[in-house]
Amino acid sequence: MRGAVLYGPRDVRLEERAAPKIIEPTDAIIRLPATCVCGSDLWDYRGIDPVAQPTPMGHEYCGIVEEVGRAVTTIKRGQFVIGSFFASDNTCPNCQAGYQSSCQHRELVGGAQARMLRVPLADGTLVATPDLPSDELIPSLLTLSDVMGTGWFAAEAASVKPGMTVAVVGDGAVGLLGVLSARQMGAERIVAMSRHEPRQKLAREFGATDIVTERGDGGVARIKELTNGIGADAVLECVGTHESMMQAIRSARPGASVGYVGVPHGVELDAHELFFAHVRLHGGPAPVRRFLPELIDLVWNREINPGKVFDLTLPLENVAEGYRAMDERRAIKTLLRP
Amino acid sequence: MRGAVLYGPRDVRLEERAAPKIIEPTDAIIRLPATCVCGSDLWDYRGIDPVAQPTPMGHEYCGIVEEVGRAVTTIKRGQFVIGSFFASDNTCPNCQAGYQSSCQHRELVGGAQARMLRVPLADGTLVATPDLPSDELIPSLLTLSDVMGTGWFAAEAASVKPGMTVAVVGDGAVGLLGVLSARQMGAERIVAMSRHEPRQKLAREFGATDIVTERGDGGVARIKELTNGIGADAVLECVGTHESMMQAIRSARPGASVGYVGVPHGVELDAHELFFAHVRLHGGPAPVRRFLPELIDLVWNREINPGKVFDLTLPLENVAEGYRAMDERRAIKTLLRP
Repeated sequence: MRGAVLYGPRDVRLEERAAPKIIEPTDAIIRLPATCVCGSDLWDYRGIDPVAQPTPMGHEYCGIVEEVGRAVTTIKRGQFVIGSFFASDNTCPNCQAGYQSSCQHRELVGGAQARMLRVPLADGTLVATPDLPSDELIPSLLTLSDVMGTGWFAAEAASVKPGMTVAVVGDGAVGLLGVLSARQMGAERIVAMSRHEPRQKLAREFGATDIVTERGDGGVARIKELTNGIGADAVLECVGTHESMMQAIRSARPGASVGYVGVPHGVELDAHELFFAHVRLHGGPAPVRRFLPELIDLVWNREINPGKVFDLTLPLENVAEGYRAMDERRAIKTLLRP
Repeated sequence: MRGAVLYGPRDVRLEERAAPKIIEPTDAIIRLPATCVCGSDLWDYRGIDPVAQPTPMGHEYCGIVEEVGRAVTTIKRGQFVIGSFFASDNTCPNCQAGYQSSCQHRELVGGAQARMLRVPLADGTLVATPDLPSDELIPSLLTLSDVMGTGWFAAEAASVKPGMTVAVVGDGAVGLLGVLSARQMGAERIVAMSRHEPRQKLAREFGATDIVTERGDGGVARIKELTNGIGADAVLECVGTHESMMQAIRSARPGASVGYVGVPHGVELDAHELFFAHVRLHGGPAPVRRFLPELIDLVWNREINPGKVFDLTLPLENVAEGYRAMDERRAIKTLLRP
């Protein structure tokens, strides 16, 4: 089996790897009709989170169950399933509280940029679609594994409610799907902060009503202008840098929530400023498992089409170009066909 | 009129000051039957927040309206009123959203350790009691001006709900009233973190079910032990140091809220740790005005007795000893009789 392996900064290679096998009796093996590159893969790819050794890449997946371990009871061979980048038992107290990405037995899923994948804790992790999906649904279903679930969590953590004015910091795929999520949750006005024309266009398609191109203090000033000097009712932080986090916090009105889902890199928060800003902060690795049933329904019923974030589709053989295009911001998100 | 003035570290003096007068037509002048020393006054008193010049002290107050400016329409001479340490118009968008301590026209009230006080924005700031209170109610009514309203906000910001297990970091008057607030909101188990016997006793009286004496990592470990390794459902941070904040965050289960009301001093939060902790953070200067009607009712109907935090009562003349006793932790909170 061929799969993507990261060797070092900007050095991703497709190479022969052993096909995954059942290791634990709770595992499942699934065959992937499509996989993709995540914005968070770029932290590793760019050497910001350097890999210590050649590392199989990819953690977004959906596909057909090929085999299950002997302890798997609800997931069956032949089902089409989706799971999160964190496998979870879905029974521990953290899972029961809806924080499956903090499951007491969580395991990172890795190596999904390949034809086949081992998923641990299959019964807790995987959710089956009502039937086998038609091919055109697969990109949207694939987004539910991470990028759409993460955008949804950003909006949920920001407590988006009908009628609100929402600001979204970050125009990557997560930010764009944060726009879609905020729209789905009834936001009236959605300000996408983006300076890239193709991303602005998709943001508008997903429901953005306003575009702000300024960043940092300038971006904050524009949000204040658009909200009578008060700030947004909810803010989605979908980047993870110090600048983006401060831009999000300073764009929020007193009492507003900032939902942050960009993995923070070098972000130190001055609690004194947070205190007097009166903002609420909530975020973390998205508990995608919580949202899967609802999001599968929305995709299945053609109410949302998050798969539009894939603006580049390549055969898995061209994975290196898939990373390059995202790194250089020529692509929003790359779909790979194994 | 004599009032308390801080000259520098541990140098508070009672001295003759001009009696307050109406300056703005929206002002009221009130006569104070009692006033008190706030835990936050100690930041100044200890020189941690040094005063630049001799500063009239005190921001907690209740009393009889003596005079109102010509633009004051709802507050009347002779009423017994309570207000917050932040005067607010109670009409701006931030006030309407319940964040009166972020009022667009807010003003800090100062100089309340005296017989008379000027309160700006009287109509927005002051809430009258149903009638003139009996003398034994005055300590409890006085707490509503700040310390009780702040403990209440800690519990509210931590989203305390019936049945929850709540941890309270800090055994000052705010922490103790946080315990009372959590109990009032229906918490089932309340863990007070305190190593001072008289404060433990009052915490139990206010509703604490468990006492944890350890601090820092040891305190976190004890909270985990008490919660099957999961952490508390809600945590109140009522100190404002880096250690107390981290203790609060690390005591919270994934998805739990930390309500923080101790003014942060030198607290830098690592967003990466917050992210993976999955906690919610909310806090700031308590929007006391929002809670005044409800809290006045609770005191008036003898459902709560927050005035018990005053374990030292002195004539205003002895204000220096009132500060000293709190600084040395001989007193939880000092009531001063002008």
